[in-house]
Amino acid sequence: MRADAPIGVFDSGVGGLTVAREIMRQIPEERITYFGDTARVPYGSKSRETIVRYSRQIIRFLKTRGVKAIVVACNTASAFALEELRPEADIPIIGVVKPGARAAASATRNGRIGVIGTEGTIESGIYTQYLQRLCPDAQVVGKACPLFVSLVEEGWLKDEITTLVARRYLEELKKSDIDTLILGCTHYPLLRSTVAGIMGEGVTLVNPAYETAVSLRTLLRENNLANDGHHKNGENLYEFFVSDAAERFKRIAKSILPFDIMGIRQIQIEDY
Amino acid sequence: MRADAPIGVFDSGVGGLTVAREIMRQIPEERITYFGDTARVPYGSKSRETIVRYSRQIIRFLKTRGVKAIVVACNTASAFALEELRPEADIPIIGVVKPGARAAASATRNGRIGVIGTEGTIESGIYTQYLQRLCPDAQVVGKACPLFVSLVEEGWLKDEITTLVARRYLEELKKSDIDTLILGCTHYPLLRSTVAGIMGEGVTLVNPAYETAVSLRTLLRENNLANDGHHKNGENLYEFFVSDAAERFKRIAKSILPFDIMGIRQIQIEDY
Repeated sequence: MRADAPIGVFDSGVGGLTVAREIMRQIPEERITYFGDTARVPYGSKSRETIVRYSRQIIRFLKTRGVKAIVVACNTASAFALEELRPEADIPIIGVVKPGARAAASATRNGRIGVIGTEGTIESGIYTQYLQRLCPDAQVVGKACPLFVSLVEEGWLKDEITTLVARRYLEELKKSDIDTLILGCTHYPLLRSTVAGIMGEGVTLVNPAYETAVSLRTLLRENNLANDGHHKNGENLYEFFVSDAAERFKRIAKSILPFDIMGIRQIQIEDY
Repeated sequence: MRADAPIGVFDSGVGGLTVAREIMRQIPEERITYFGDTARVPYGSKSRETIVRYSRQIIRFLKTRGVKAIVVACNTASAFALEELRPEADIPIIGVVKPGARAAASATRNGRIGVIGTEGTIESGIYTQYLQRLCPDAQVVGKACPLFVSLVEEGWLKDEITTLVARRYLEELKKSDIDTLILGCTHYPLLRSTVAGIMGEGVTLVNPAYETAVSLRTLLRENNLANDGHHKNGENLYEFFVSDAAERFKRIAKSILPFDIMGIRQIQIEDY
């Protein structure tokens, strides 16, 4: 595997771009091949079995693009599919859950940690598992926030309705004396200021994207896969694929990435 | 084709059960095979090309179950896929859009008709086309309400947040002097009272499901496919299939159907 090969990053849709953005920022010399599964989005309310099947197809597709490593930039897919698919991938593969848990474990002072995410992620209990491995005494409170993804996709980021929805979802967490809250879905960093306003200054918000990019860099170095820096210029570093509705993807991507996506290609993911 | 064969009814998920319920009520002697595409729900924000591909697979699946006719109980699929797939189906097939337009055309007195639906349905302009064929002077105002489906799936049917969202979406329609409003997505009848409260008594709400069941009955009679009434007892008349998460489907179905779904089977729809 060549060190100048791209890193594959995938998500059910646009949310994973918050992770791609962090990789671009922290490791600007790396190429990225992004895939958003817009034909089958969302993943958060679907079963483990289905998410494993979808993720397997995406990994096969990314490998046809010659990626040297894969980032599962979707909490639900990381929760359901990562461990099962790692042996099949035969290239390094990381998700966002373990890095997110690690960041939260170092941020907490009172050992009480909240996690918000999709139904799939919360019901899997995966953040609790990882957190309790890192600090066995941790108290973890999870809460699924199914409407958050739709609100982000509607573009209602700073909005009285979004605030009301967030207040309802976070009510229980506010009462539970947590000092750290994991934004356990890649769409949620876009609601950061709303969530921060409700939780208050005493609660540290953890975006797993930051720590995921840190882990990725370590992983690449350990596997002698880090790019040596002799790369083409910025605009050719990134390529984007979706399984549906490229224009819609491009429109929402504008609010996440610091540049406009130019060439975006649509593929039929069921063929992989 | 035997007259005692079932009618195939499909939707992206649970929403089409509002249509199935109306068929059960109006034509209780007919058997129904329902399919909900829960592995790929929602359809409303996806492209024509993708919805055609998904609908084609579902029609193939329903035909393996021996259905004598098909009801596309999803406005987005009716808008995007019905005309293209009708020639391939080789059994009678109807959607919900044409019946809905007909009901609205007879209900309106001032010729000003509103339509609410998914982005796909509204952007297709299909209701406007049908309505203007029926009454060439009709003024049609469409409005996509993307969050409505998520609110229904969250179970927030009578809720202050749902009312605020509905007020925002319906604001423009309220100002436009319509006297008739089509609930152009099969999830929306579940928000009927919220929508009615906002639009006021002067606006007639049209649920295409009622007129779809009327059209279905006519279609069956014209094709000599109406069941003669020598059927098994109620509990064996209906069968349900989904492409994912049967338990979740069952839970939401409870609020739509007047009985609990017992045997529900999961299939892999991409195989068709």
